[in-house]
Amino acid sequence: MYPIKIFSGSANRPLADRVCQYLDQPMGKMIVEKFPDGESFCRIEEDVRGKDVFIIQPTCRPVNDTLMELLVMIDCCRRASADRITAVIPYFGYARQDRKDEGRVPISAKLCANLLECAGANRVVALDLHSAQIQGFFDIPLDHLSASPILDEYINSLGYSPDEVVVVSPDAGSIKRAVKHVEALGGSLAIIDKRRLSGSEVEQAHLIGGPIEGRVAFLFDDMISTGGSICGAAKVVKEMGAKKVIVAASHGILCGPAIERLQEAPIDQVVLSDTIPLLPEHHIPKIKVLSCAPILGEVIKRIHNHESISQMFKTLKFATGQYY
Amino acid sequence: MYPIKIFSGSANRPLADRVCQYLDQPMGKMIVEKFPDGESFCRIEEDVRGKDVFIIQPTCRPVNDTLMELLVMIDCCRRASADRITAVIPYFGYARQDRKDEGRVPISAKLCANLLECAGANRVVALDLHSAQIQGFFDIPLDHLSASPILDEYINSLGYSPDEVVVVSPDAGSIKRAVKHVEALGGSLAIIDKRRLSGSEVEQAHLIGGPIEGRVAFLFDDMISTGGSICGAAKVVKEMGAKKVIVAASHGILCGPAIERLQEAPIDQVVLSDTIPLLPEHHIPKIKVLSCAPILGEVIKRIHNHESISQMFKTLKFATGQYY
Amino acid sequence: MYPIKIFSGSANRPLADRVCQYLDQPMGKMIVEKFPDGESFCRIEEDVRGKDVFIIQPTCRPVNDTLMELLVMIDCCRRASADRITAVIPYFGYARQDRKDEGRVPISAKLCANLLECAGANRVVALDLHSAQIQGFFDIPLDHLSASPILDEYINSLGYSPDEVVVVSPDAGSIKRAVKHVEALGGSLAIIDKRRLSGSEVEQAHLIGGPIEGRVAFLFDDMISTGGSICGAAKVVKEMGAKKVIVAASHGILCGPAIERLQEAPIDQVVLSDTIPLLPEHHIPKIKVLSCAPILGEVIKRIHNHESISQMFKTLKFATGQYY
Amino acid sequence: MYPIKIFSGSANRPLADRVCQYLDQPMGKMIVEKFPDGESFCRIEEDVRGKDVFIIQPTCRPVNDTLMELLVMIDCCRRASADRITAVIPYFGYARQDRKDEGRVPISAKLCANLLECAGANRVVALDLHSAQIQGFFDIPLDHLSASPILDEYINSLGYSPDEVVVVSPDAGSIKRAVKHVEALGGSLAIIDKRRLSGSEVEQAHLIGGPIEGRVAFLFDDMISTGGSICGAAKVVKEMGAKKVIVAASHGILCGPAIERLQEAPIDQVVLSDTIPLLPEHHIPKIKVLSCAPILGEVIKRIHNHESISQMFKTLKFATGQYY
Amino acid sequence: MYPIKIFSGSANRPLADRVCQYLDQPMGKMIVEKFPDGESFCRIEEDVRGKDVFIIQPTCRPVNDTLMELLVMIDCCRRASADRITAVIPYFGYARQDRKDEGRVPISAKLCANLLECAGANRVVALDLHSAQIQGFFDIPLDHLSASPILDEYINSLGYSPDEVVVVSPDAGSIKRAVKHVEALGGSLAIIDKRRLSGSEVEQAHLIGGPIEGRVAFLFDDMISTGGSICGAAKVVKEMGAKKVIVAASHGILCGPAIERLQEAPIDQVVLSDTIPLLPEHHIPKIKVLSCAPILGEVIKRIHNHESISQMFKTLKFATGQYY
Amino acid sequence: MYPIKIFSGSANRPLADRVCQYLDQPMGKMIVEKFPDGESFCRIEEDVRGKDVFIIQPTCRPVNDTLMELLVMIDCCRRASADRITAVIPYFGYARQDRKDEGRVPISAKLCANLLECAGANRVVALDLHSAQIQGFFDIPLDHLSASPILDEYINSLGYSPDEVVVVSPDAGSIKRAVKHVEALGGSLAIIDKRRLSGSEVEQAHLIGGPIEGRVAFLFDDMISTGGSICGAAKVVKEMGAKKVIVAASHGILCGPAIERLQEAPIDQVVLSDTIPLLPEHHIPKIKVLSCAPILGEVIKRIHNHESISQMFKTLKFATGQYY
Repeated sequence: MYPIKIFSGSANRPLADRVCQYLDQPMGKMIVEKFPDGESFCRIEEDVRGKDVFIIQPTCRPVNDTLMELLVMIDCCRRASADRITAVIPYFGYARQDRKDEGRVPISAKLCANLLECAGANRVVALDLHSAQIQGFFDIPLDHLSASPILDEYINSLGYSPDEVVVVSPDAGSIKRAVKHVEALGGSLAIIDKRRLSGSEVEQAHLIGGPIEGRVAFLFDDMISTGGSICGAAKVVKEMGAKKVIVAASHGILCGPAIERLQEAPIDQVVLSDTIPLLPEHHIPKIKVLSCAPILGEVIKRIHNHESISQMFKTLKFATGQYY
Repeated sequence: MYPIKIFSGSANRPLADRVCQYLDQPMGKMIVEKFPDGESFCRIEEDVRGKDVFIIQPTCRPVNDTLMELLVMIDCCRRASADRITAVIPYFGYARQDRKDEGRVPISAKLCANLLECAGANRVVALDLHSAQIQGFFDIPLDHLSASPILDEYINSLGYSPDEVVVVSPDAGSIKRAVKHVEALGGSLAIIDKRRLSGSEVEQAHLIGGPIEGRVAFLFDDMISTGGSICGAAKVVKEMGAKKVIVAASHGILCGPAIERLQEAPIDQVVLSDTIPLLPEHHIPKIKVLSCAPILGEVIKRIHNHESISQMFKTLKFATGQYY
Repeated sequence: MYPIKIFSGSANRPLADRVCQYLDQPMGKMIVEKFPDGESFCRIEEDVRGKDVFIIQPTCRPVNDTLMELLVMIDCCRRASADRITAVIPYFGYARQDRKDEGRVPISAKLCANLLECAGANRVVALDLHSAQIQGFFDIPLDHLSASPILDEYINSLGYSPDEVVVVSPDAGSIKRAVKHVEALGGSLAIIDKRRLSGSEVEQAHLIGGPIEGRVAFLFDDMISTGGSICGAAKVVKEMGAKKVIVAASHGILCGPAIERLQEAPIDQVVLSDTIPLLPEHHIPKIKVLSCAPILGEVIKRIHNHESISQMFKTLKFATGQYY
Repeated sequence: MYPIKIFSGSANRPLADRVCQYLDQPMGKMIVEKFPDGESFCRIEEDVRGKDVFIIQPTCRPVNDTLMELLVMIDCCRRASADRITAVIPYFGYARQDRKDEGRVPISAKLCANLLECAGANRVVALDLHSAQIQGFFDIPLDHLSASPILDEYINSLGYSPDEVVVVSPDAGSIKRAVKHVEALGGSLAIIDKRRLSGSEVEQAHLIGGPIEGRVAFLFDDMISTGGSICGAAKVVKEMGAKKVIVAASHGILCGPAIERLQEAPIDQVVLSDTIPLLPEHHIPKIKVLSCAPILGEVIKRIHNHESISQMFKTLKFATGQYY
Repeated sequence: MYPIKIFSGSANRPLADRVCQYLDQPMGKMIVEKFPDGESFCRIEEDVRGKDVFIIQPTCRPVNDTLMELLVMIDCCRRASADRITAVIPYFGYARQDRKDEGRVPISAKLCANLLECAGANRVVALDLHSAQIQGFFDIPLDHLSASPILDEYINSLGYSPDEVVVVSPDAGSIKRAVKHVEALGGSLAIIDKRRLSGSEVEQAHLIGGPIEGRVAFLFDDMISTGGSICGAAKVVKEMGAKKVIVAASHGILCGPAIERLQEAPIDQVVLSDTIPLLPEHHIPKIKVLSCAPILGEVIKRIHNHESISQMFKTLKFATGQYY
Repeated sequence: MYPIKIFSGSANRPLADRVCQYLDQPMGKMIVEKFPDGESFCRIEEDVRGKDVFIIQPTCRPVNDTLMELLVMIDCCRRASADRITAVIPYFGYARQDRKDEGRVPISAKLCANLLECAGANRVVALDLHSAQIQGFFDIPLDHLSASPILDEYINSLGYSPDEVVVVSPDAGSIKRAVKHVEALGGSLAIIDKRRLSGSEVEQAHLIGGPIEGRVAFLFDDMISTGGSICGAAKVVKEMGAKKVIVAASHGILCGPAIERLQEAPIDQVVLSDTIPLLPEHHIPKIKVLSCAPILGEVIKRIHNHESISQMFKTLKFATGQYY
């Protein structure tokens, strides 16, 4: 078996360190920097010939920099004769541009997949892709993971009975995810139905399903970006009489007015995974971060050892403690 | 401008004839046959050098034959020096296998996309793909059409007022489609929520949203395959008090027990487009078929003339009459 | 050395079982099925990560189904991270469409080769390809085997002396094969010369070479399809005075009127290999089937162990017994 | 229609000039030379942007130089923005290495096809490929021509009646070609059967078919290389009593002892096309050269004008005069 | 001829406007923006089907954003069925990473070339690439332009006699460029020889060639990045007695301490082209900017019209006036 | 670890033998020959399945033959199932055609890189490429070596003190190489400045830098082709008063008048490596050849063992003795 070697770009070094810790492996020595003119550069400081290389880099903010850095690192490893290069991309940027819903727009998620294959990636590990079909944008093997077990495990630890719980899908696109969480957590199901009213551009949100009244409402989404959608949903749910509102998402993008909105919205807690590193201004009390390092670490180990990943979620236990 | 040339495989010759009629173009002469050993074969009987070739072939039942026939026709046109080859695939088979929702399964929809590019297709026209992301499975240009305008136009012609109408999504996966039809038709929205009960494998369907009572329920899906899901939904809706149940789908696959189920279910009418030809046993009174030939014909004309397709749906009028 | 794993599609499961038996390996667990709408599907039921996978699937009748099933299985194994995927294709369908002998036809054999590479096959094992040049349709390694040693070994066991034997090529295209068998079996050589008569479309077959009179005539072909050519040749040979007529071919396609023709023709025995499974109606007394499982099994073993295949035919002994 | 532009490498400039003359087109200005260190080089001396470029270059002796020169010219035209590049290769070198007939040898004909596509050729015109399957080595369109009509036209002009004629295939591999010429010329058919005798390496040639006695024997092959095979066949035929022996081949490679052998063999005339230029020492009286320029010229014209080539041979008349 | 359509990303809109003005063509309507999460996006606001599209975008600061934006625009145009997509990249970022001068580094310039081809660019226009060999990183046609005629024309307009002039190469790598300018401008040649002293890491710059004393020194480079090299060279030249120091470069990157250094260095004038837009803080009196829009515009016109570009520099006159 | 297997084409068998000797490995058995018609052919005489194959073949004179032979060997190894194929190309022909310095010429060095990848090479080892950017012409890993350590070691063994030495670049293009040798050897630096005089085509060479007077001048180039440039430089240096002139180059092409020129020029010694085999007429007393076999052998060993090559030059000692 060729030796394993793990590298991290600059996108989320703390997560990569946690993965190395899980694996009891040293972080590979690689200089990743920006030249004064803004060009990304890397130089590997140890031998990777014939190694089984994993590069951990979510393509999160600043997305074009983290993506290009990832491509440069892959090119570098390929030319340095790595045996196999796995791009571990806990958050896959550009994922929402996964189809043409109007004329003359790009399908940037497919473009990113093409760029990664073109640069020389041999396989990809991704986590909670915005749509499952993005797996098919690649022809190289892709292992698609989910932070849901970690989120559900944490929520279960809060000790609510199914009768108290309502799972709310913040929009029509997230209903499948909500159904899965209902299956894991119990409780009732509700959906926020946002609709353009004919004859005007005003969008009206009302809720179907339930009941909400007096229950703890869990709102699940794959990511929180500007927070507009989820905070609007929280407000509707609160107005309907929810006694508590807890929001959970795999990816905390938290751009633009997100923090301000989350602060002001009737949300009691925001549960996120650590696929994207929080900025200093994101550290508000109601945000709780759970680490997906055990999932990533375990998957890397299994890929390296040619062990089944399908079996993994059935047996793996995750610590529910947040990491800071 | 290079001349246009339209060919049809054996999958849906009547639809191809209607498209030629719309375009006022003769059908290209091509022998498409099966050898005694089952191998597909074609021979083009007129010159295609430098022509702008369109091959109309839904990859419907028998899907492996229609797909392979399409690939053979593309290979044939490429080697015969066609200038450009557009595969017009009104129904794209294998579309439901568009992601790995469990370990160690294929993504056959991506495989089909790869096979089409590999065989030499230069562009694709598709209609109501099972998921919009399949567009990104291709790197060649793809024009994604919808039969919804035809369905909505017909339903509008039935003359119900929005107050009478409820649009029902037969499962969580179809809710986005339902929302779009609500925007076009008015009325209320409801969803059939099917869920595995914890501790058992029994699936329970109940309805959220509404109201249903006394209304005309429209159930929309992209395709009707064995009919199990849609007939189950119809039964729920009927039990909830719907006064009429009308089912509409773009693609009428109608395999296995579909016809029997549709006959027996409390469904008043089934509206389909003609992307897939009906078999003789499919001709039951409650099925009404609307032709998408005007859409396909118009799109072929615009592709050939380099005219905008985005503009097309804003101006085009479709005849609502069924074609038999 | 990575572990070996052998799978079989539905095309010829008995042959695959014999190969596994030869190798003393269990058949890999894979569900291969057709959905009600006719789409092929597979799900691997055991781990293939890092395995050396062999998929045994002749692309015989129904050819489009067996071909597509093979492509789907390859796609599945690739995405499930198999280390290497070898498509073992004992009968390679579409092989006769290996060139354009008239304008505007496909070269479907090349198309199939492209599709296999496109789906992700890493190497191919084939047996008695219709033309040896099909090897060059692939850029991945291809091991080209022959059932001739098995056929010759059986014929030798019949105990005729070279003086009694005449080897007959049923048409001009098969003469090279006939020459090789003459070298292995001894005897004289004759060719059926079919020719269009100038001024008419009537084809006249007469025999050149020989002598035939009083000899046992062996007619060799790579495949028996509708049987028209070989039965016509048998008749000519019989009329020329052959005392016995034995037909041998690697691939028994036996489509259309083949069985009826073979029954009626003055043929004493038809010797076939088991690359294509016989249908129940093919089981007539004069057909004898020899198994090529030892050849396939030995080749798979050698490919897996990186051992020479060129050396193999010099040392391997095959049991001459038919398998049923 | 983009303008046509014809270039020639150094392999067969006289043929290219004849093609230009047929087309009434000037030869494109391109410097093709060898640097002192042996590297091939070309510089186009006129604009080719957006032009429909045809490069005439048989890959004949010295084959590696003519092949590399062709690749360099294609690369040059591609980078100079030619609209379309057609490689016109009247003689396709390396064609006999079209399969692996023993272990661990290259398939150089496929390699050459790959190199041509890799360099940027958009289409190929070839003439009398050693095997028709080489067409399938390409995925770009290939027009496969034959010099047979020219050869047959000339032979017909000699005025022999079918009763006087016997067409002889010099070996088993050429019998298909011989059958076609019999269909065109009439007469009887014979084959030289060369076979290794069991137990020794001595090859014995004897003739099957006929009759030969007192007839004019026409021996057809696709190429004459060292002349060993054809001269051996001529001797057999003469010994069998042929009154005259005429050899015809599309490609006169004439390497090694070919001229000496042809001189000494009982051959009355050798008819060749001009796909390969004769060297001064090849100019012996019994060799007659017919030009294929009208075929190539007509095909180039039709490719450029998007006209059918299938139709061409039915109507085209060739001058039977030799060109020097 | 298909119509032309010119688009600009956000990298250098003023230059693109000047090019449109030169061509008397409207700028194509395309929305190019960044989403709140930093993802680049574009939407074309007019039809590009069958159009000859040129996208003007130097991949200058912020290079990862401008590069990704360019790739997204190309993907968008390809999927919107543009007939041909030419990426006009006046400044090609990452060009200095064009080789591995130490172990385990990327060749990012090649990576960028691959990404552009992968995204769907059909051809490239570049200007003063850092090394000419980058042309060979592409297999699509690339037109390589130079701003040197504009720089030389301007310098000639200053009216110095060759006897007054010395052309100085600021380092060994730029000497070829300096030699070319000497050929255009006359004068003597000198080189700054920077060398690591054995036994220490101190680099010592001294000048070879000349004479410098009392002359006007022109220092040419392809780009000014942090200005360290060129300002050091200017100091050496001044110390050697140059009466005036004029620096000229095609690309004004001007990052880090560049402006401060240029201000303080004994440089009388800095002449740049407008391939990279100046930031407000770059507007210092000694910087003079000449526009390359006439070159780019003329080349676009000629590419579109299939006219020779080689001929262009022999006849084109450029206005020497700076553009602000 | 898969076993290693080393093969040599016909280009430089002595060098390959020396490499095998260094590695204590037998030369792999492969028949490499030319057929009478000039086609290259090879047949591997031992098993290469799953082997780590290295093919040593400089693409030196006759370049088209050695290049095609290399491609054929690669194709052969690929089809024979070699695990990995490394093309070891000590001299890379066509390297000077690495850019378009005028319109409508090929970039043949890129073409060669493409052909090698197309034929199936998995990696490349090269030595002193004409320009370092050629590394980027490949997307497969390339290890770029240099003979400079061997040349410098030898020159150091001559025992001159730095004060006696001047390193001379024979033209502007070689100055970077000269600077590196100055850093290794000490001494002063000078450049031959060749320039076209304005108004005429006469080229005048004069020297800048120095001093030369009374020193031992070392002229370094990457290759000596016709010798015109280096001999002209030697003459200038001698006229300037050099007491001794020693020329050193990695590649001794020595074509055309090279030997005559070197004989007559005021050159005391010519030091070459053995990347290209000397012809009998090249054996003149003033030419000394140093072997690069230790470098190549060491690199092959390290590639095979997945050991760092960057570390190699820091520790490796080379024997300075010439090999004949």
